[in-house]
Amino acid sequence: MTDLQLIGKQAKEAATQLALLDTKQKNQLLEHMATAVENNTEEILQANQMDLEQADSNGIKEVMKDRLKLTEDRIAAMADGIRHISQLKDPIGTIEHMWKNEDGLTIGQKRVPIGVIGIIYESRPNVTTDAASLCFKSGNTVILRGGKESFYSNQLLVSVLQEALNKNQFSPYAVQFIDDTSYETANEMMELTEYLDVLIPRGGAGLITHVKENAKVPVIETGTGNNHIYIDKDSQLDMATEIIANAKAQRPSVCNACETLLIHKEVAAFFLPAIEEELVELGIELRADEWASEYLPSARLAAEEDWSTEFLDYTLAVKVVDSIDEAIAHINHYNTKHSEAIVTDNYFSSQKFLNEIDAAAVYVNASTRFTDGFVFGFGAEIGISTQKLHARGPMGLEALTSTKYIIYGEGQTRK
Amino acid sequence: MTDLQLIGKQAKEAATQLALLDTKQKNQLLEHMATAVENNTEEILQANQMDLEQADSNGIKEVMKDRLKLTEDRIAAMADGIRHISQLKDPIGTIEHMWKNEDGLTIGQKRVPIGVIGIIYESRPNVTTDAASLCFKSGNTVILRGGKESFYSNQLLVSVLQEALNKNQFSPYAVQFIDDTSYETANEMMELTEYLDVLIPRGGAGLITHVKENAKVPVIETGTGNNHIYIDKDSQLDMATEIIANAKAQRPSVCNACETLLIHKEVAAFFLPAIEEELVELGIELRADEWASEYLPSARLAAEEDWSTEFLDYTLAVKVVDSIDEAIAHINHYNTKHSEAIVTDNYFSSQKFLNEIDAAAVYVNASTRFTDGFVFGFGAEIGISTQKLHARGPMGLEALTSTKYIIYGEGQTRK
Repeated sequence: MTDLQLIGKQAKEAATQLALLDTKQKNQLLEHMATAVENNTEEILQANQMDLEQADSNGIKEVMKDRLKLTEDRIAAMADGIRHISQLKDPIGTIEHMWKNEDGLTIGQKRVPIGVIGIIYESRPNVTTDAASLCFKSGNTVILRGGKESFYSNQLLVSVLQEALNKNQFSPYAVQFIDDTSYETANEMMELTEYLDVLIPRGGAGLITHVKENAKVPVIETGTGNNHIYIDKDSQLDMATEIIANAKAQRPSVCNACETLLIHKEVAAFFLPAIEEELVELGIELRADEWASEYLPSARLAAEEDWSTEFLDYTLAVKVVDSIDEAIAHINHYNTKHSEAIVTDNYFSSQKFLNEIDAAAVYVNASTRFTDGFVFGFGAEIGISTQKLHARGPMGLEALTSTKYIIYGEGQTRK
Repeated sequence: MTDLQLIGKQAKEAATQLALLDTKQKNQLLEHMATAVENNTEEILQANQMDLEQADSNGIKEVMKDRLKLTEDRIAAMADGIRHISQLKDPIGTIEHMWKNEDGLTIGQKRVPIGVIGIIYESRPNVTTDAASLCFKSGNTVILRGGKESFYSNQLLVSVLQEALNKNQFSPYAVQFIDDTSYETANEMMELTEYLDVLIPRGGAGLITHVKENAKVPVIETGTGNNHIYIDKDSQLDMATEIIANAKAQRPSVCNACETLLIHKEVAAFFLPAIEEELVELGIELRADEWASEYLPSARLAAEEDWSTEFLDYTLAVKVVDSIDEAIAHINHYNTKHSEAIVTDNYFSSQKFLNEIDAAAVYVNASTRFTDGFVFGFGAEIGISTQKLHARGPMGLEALTSTKYIIYGEGQTRK
């Protein structure tokens, strides 16, 4: 039985210690962690082999096995990832604003760590080192609960990071791993309000919904993206085709891929056959409403649930709309508030779309695939928030911080 | 039976409409609301009379009745409050940052409304107009669920605001009131995830804990303040006495009042008797640990629970500490992360305290009573957040906003 109370208490204590380190000290420890990952390549590969054997005996699909599989190169990339995060600007300690109020108090808003961050994830072992180093750099301790598929890899990676911390006189409890993948333990983690300051689920829609509905700890929702591209009546066929092909097919399994194409009725008859040609060549299967079907011989008829499905696959829903207003209404009704794009030459359409679409990222004449912390220039990301509180969109280091007001007085009292 | 689903749906629809208003339009509607409050003074007083009669028959304390009671002046002040909020700078539409990324995309982070805000409150009727106008100005629609003590006043006030909106061709559902003060309805509100973007409880610790533990909607915790003042060994008696007297006695019933005095052992024997004299004159009852009791003839012995009690009354706990480290450890253990102060002449003590205390506001040589949106210069506040996510400390208009990334492209696709 995993003692989550103990893990939580250790994390909280380590957080107090970690909050006092300066940037140089944190970076040195991250460097030690990166070196430790490299130095333990052999052991990590052995642990990963156990995961792969388990995957075989469970008949896991090849594509999933590839996500799971570590190689020397992939382990080197994990170490590089840690080093990259050590080089990012440390947000902690920044005074965002500082002003003198009417009482003569000097008031500053200072960036501080959140404290203890819980991460429940399903995906690849590199999430372990990425999440651990992002939390560490931003002054937070982390409790990781990974999926059972990569259990042995994750467990070994965390023990390598802990050993590096320990050897360098820092609390190994800054990065902890829950070595129990049962649902009971995950549910218990969601109620660890005494110790966890926030819980970030990373994975599929099912995981995220489950965490959101059951957690008593504050949650930052990430990731699910039922994204749309709307092709306006004033738009260029070439640009529209390139953007929809990129957003759908460049990497269909990710959350910023496009799932539904909306197109204005005035260009549908001319554009859709050309777009279909390109998409079919890329292996995309189309599901169209009745109107769009008239122009799309390869499409099968879309069902109601297709409008709300995040396919994450070579499938695209297509719908013809009467107006930009209908497009916006459709998007705001069905989307998951992730990434939305319009293709248009019209100034007023672009502004209307930017203003009225409710999503973390709204694009004019660009692919939705750009919603990404690296692309935005944050250097790295812990996930993409699709909620409105605290952080929205790609979450870099700053999204892992809070603030406190620091106030310098000279004996002031309130009248 | 109150139909919360319907109220939620109406609020969501009105939010879409409200998000499209410009600042001038919002300000004009706020002005209409203020005028309507003034024009309905007689009706509001009558409704308030029903609350006062109910209070009488329920044997409510005089001090509580005074909080409940409206007068012509107090109603005029409510209208002025609405006008004041209309004059504050509108945060909506501000582009916080805008930059060009490596792909040539111009990325901006734009401030947008959160959407629908729920407020559960126990306090005075003026919270109704304050909360409604703060939410309105920041582009959010609001669902108010007030306490039963001020039910008739709240209900009438909201109907006055709604009539003003309606008369001016705007959806009255921008400000809604739940005319049912049952616990069942409050609990149902806490689970209204489809429509409520955030829930802000305003009231006592019991209410806030209940909401935090039961809500499925994201919550911003506000208000409870078990605050401390630590008198360092290098400090001035006069300043220490003035600050502690102000923080404890100027208005003991508020969340930024001080509840525990910590004092360094080296000055305890000299300072405490003088401080006691001042505090006793102000009617303060002291509860001291054994050590402090030696210097405080009027004090009774503190019990363990006194260290974690928010007295909100003329009561102060007092403890002698060996060092600033002990003071910081005590505070971080018992505080509610609201407001904490040190009185010191020592530079290093001041920096240590500012760095190591975990609270929304940390003061050097000033009273904790300053933690307040008006005092900080925000013009108004919806509450004081004691959590770390989204907003921390006094919450002005900006704390009622979210952001979205807007991205201007020229046909870019991801490589």
